[in-house]
Amino acid sequence: MEIISEPEVQQWLTIIRRPQLNNITLQDVVGKILRDVKEVGDTSVINYNLQFDGVKTNGLLVTDQEFEEAELLVTDELKKAITMAKNNIEKFHGAQLEKEITIETTPGVFCWRRSVPIEKVGLYIPGGSAPLFSTLLMLGIPAVLAGCKVINVCTPAGKDGKINPVILFTAKMLGLKNIFKTGGAQAIAAMAYGTKSISSVHKIFGPGNQYVTCAKQLVSRDGIAIDMPAGPSELAVYANETCEPSFVAADLLSQAEHGADSQVLVIANSRDVIENILFEVEGQSKNLSRKDIIEKSLQNCRFVVLKDVGEAFNLLNEYAPEHLIIATGNADQLADKVMHAGSVFLGNYSAESAGDYASGTNHTLPTNGYAKAYSGVSLDSFIKKITFQKLSREGLLNIGKTVELMAEAEGLDAHAEAIKIRLNLRK
Amino acid sequence: MEIISEPEVQQWLTIIRRPQLNNITLQDVVGKILRDVKEVGDTSVINYNLQFDGVKTNGLLVTDQEFEEAELLVTDELKKAITMAKNNIEKFHGAQLEKEITIETTPGVFCWRRSVPIEKVGLYIPGGSAPLFSTLLMLGIPAVLAGCKVINVCTPAGKDGKINPVILFTAKMLGLKNIFKTGGAQAIAAMAYGTKSISSVHKIFGPGNQYVTCAKQLVSRDGIAIDMPAGPSELAVYANETCEPSFVAADLLSQAEHGADSQVLVIANSRDVIENILFEVEGQSKNLSRKDIIEKSLQNCRFVVLKDVGEAFNLLNEYAPEHLIIATGNADQLADKVMHAGSVFLGNYSAESAGDYASGTNHTLPTNGYAKAYSGVSLDSFIKKITFQKLSREGLLNIGKTVELMAEAEGLDAHAEAIKIRLNLRK
Repeated sequence: MEIISEPEVQQWLTIIRRPQLNNITLQDVVGKILRDVKEVGDTSVINYNLQFDGVKTNGLLVTDQEFEEAELLVTDELKKAITMAKNNIEKFHGAQLEKEITIETTPGVFCWRRSVPIEKVGLYIPGGSAPLFSTLLMLGIPAVLAGCKVINVCTPAGKDGKINPVILFTAKMLGLKNIFKTGGAQAIAAMAYGTKSISSVHKIFGPGNQYVTCAKQLVSRDGIAIDMPAGPSELAVYANETCEPSFVAADLLSQAEHGADSQVLVIANSRDVIENILFEVEGQSKNLSRKDIIEKSLQNCRFVVLKDVGEAFNLLNEYAPEHLIIATGNADQLADKVMHAGSVFLGNYSAESAGDYASGTNHTLPTNGYAKAYSGVSLDSFIKKITFQKLSREGLLNIGKTVELMAEAEGLDAHAEAIKIRLNLRK
Repeated sequence: MEIISEPEVQQWLTIIRRPQLNNITLQDVVGKILRDVKEVGDTSVINYNLQFDGVKTNGLLVTDQEFEEAELLVTDELKKAITMAKNNIEKFHGAQLEKEITIETTPGVFCWRRSVPIEKVGLYIPGGSAPLFSTLLMLGIPAVLAGCKVINVCTPAGKDGKINPVILFTAKMLGLKNIFKTGGAQAIAAMAYGTKSISSVHKIFGPGNQYVTCAKQLVSRDGIAIDMPAGPSELAVYANETCEPSFVAADLLSQAEHGADSQVLVIANSRDVIENILFEVEGQSKNLSRKDIIEKSLQNCRFVVLKDVGEAFNLLNEYAPEHLIIATGNADQLADKVMHAGSVFLGNYSAESAGDYASGTNHTLPTNGYAKAYSGVSLDSFIKKITFQKLSREGLLNIGKTVELMAEAEGLDAHAEAIKIRLNLRK
């Protein structure tokens, strides 16, 4: 933990530095897994499940019986909660459907874009220390709304060979049936290249450990699209004296519990504000179940005092955080200063965990500064847009000369001829 | 050239096969260029311009005087044509701006997405055999409409050290001033890492040869976003007896003149239709200036007879072409069968070259089957969408229990605490 007061702009690069991810050493290991699965298929997936996760998975596809068993293991209270989250996420993502509008750019020249679902998608849901059924909601809901025909879900089974029941309940609620018991790079390989059990897909989504991330990068070179490059989760907070320090502290701790590599950056307009937050962090952290992880990740936490709010937002934009909380009374006005961020939480009652689960926004967001050029997952991520154009003979007459002149100026005769031949032929 | 009649589905994979691009061998060469430019900067860019293009470029930035000189060299007729194309492209892309809609997912929980321009973008415009000022229109117009603050354009100078005047005229018309005289991998490196003359950008767009493509792939691993993976240009045509064979032939030839590696696939419902098209190809190809290139690329041309129109579109969708012409009378109805394509041209008067230049749609499109998961360039490509949420105390009360239960079920206590602490604090 470090408090930096009024840093010079030259210091900013140090403040916003992310941990260097060295995945060159991983590439050999992951590359071998990809090749094996591509060549051998299911048997190879099953072997890697045993080797890496110590799990025997004879059949990869989750059975109807397993779905039924799972449903009995989830409390009604939790089912209700998941249903509410689903409804909110559906409302927000459903509103992202774009209407098809035809533009007549010149009389007789009609152009439009059609949103067409990506036919086959793969969703990776991490298992491990936390069963991330919320991620299944965040990826599964827009995939279903978009109308993707094949939605394959891979998630690792526990030591008992079973998948977490809440994940299965969530899958069933979304109408997803292709749930496969495998995690790690072997799961990504199976969805990229296809095996007997797991069909290949056009785009792969979802967070994962460094093996999964590296596998996604490698298969993307083979033309499989991926949602976005991934890195450790991040939170930045802007706070002033109108913040509630205990709330900010709770948000920092919730970010910190994600993993020892979680990133937190707090910018406040005075040292007092930061000290009040730190006092609360100290008090609240004692009773949390993941306090060992929290302790480690808090060591990377950076606190910066910047009196000038413009400067503060310049630094925040340079950082381009995955999550940004504006913990102030005038959060709505400050929102206009945000140029680069994944998802933004305005005011004292907009906890990050609300967006992680149930406000309706997506929680699959760009990390590592990628918010400068990437958006988080949305309905758009499951759709591609095909442009169409239809020209009448009149339309072609209207733009024909333009096309001819431009084609000739680019030295492309045949392009010009394709216009001329159409216009010379009187019908 | 090959005519395949009623192929079995097993043969489809062969029919839709693309040339294998082997860029592993390129990676060493390109990797070295990237490292050099990253370390040495402008001098390295200038040296590579000399080494690869034989061009002396002392100052990389195009001067005001060069812009003025260029303007004098472009005919008024061509200026008028480019202006018309610009207007159409602006109309089509301007209509893609999304309105901000706030969704109240639960009472007191407000969520919205804001479209924010990608602050810094780089456009690569190939030089070489054809000065592609049309590509500058296709990339520059949406970049300006999106509101990108820094728009750097790199394009190689000719042997005389000058940039094609039509490219400079087009740049000036779009209000683009940062035009740099460099091409190849060194241009991509400069835009990715920045030099004294050329500032670094967040996303790089544009087609190029295999060095440029490889460089884009490599810098994308360093977190610079790129528009899409690139491959040789492609055209597929569906034709039946209502097509005009001479028009289809002209379109095939215009595709073929792009380069010896251009891909063409024609599917027709009878052998007669194909033979009529081939007869026209023979006749028209004689007088074209790029007939050597055309002859080579026509060798890769595949003609398939499939009587069943459903089958034909299944094969077309498997191919997922960059450009698809539906050369039939009922093109509008057949349009609904298109699942995967970059841009579609409906009916006998919708020449591909109309879309290449002036209909209004973008001509930067996914090749190599990437249309299964990628869209062509649009306004969206220059924008990222940031999600915002604002919860009132009431809003948090309404979804608080849901968040708590879900967080606890995922084993994330601190996430639940961030809600509890806000709801316990009575104000």
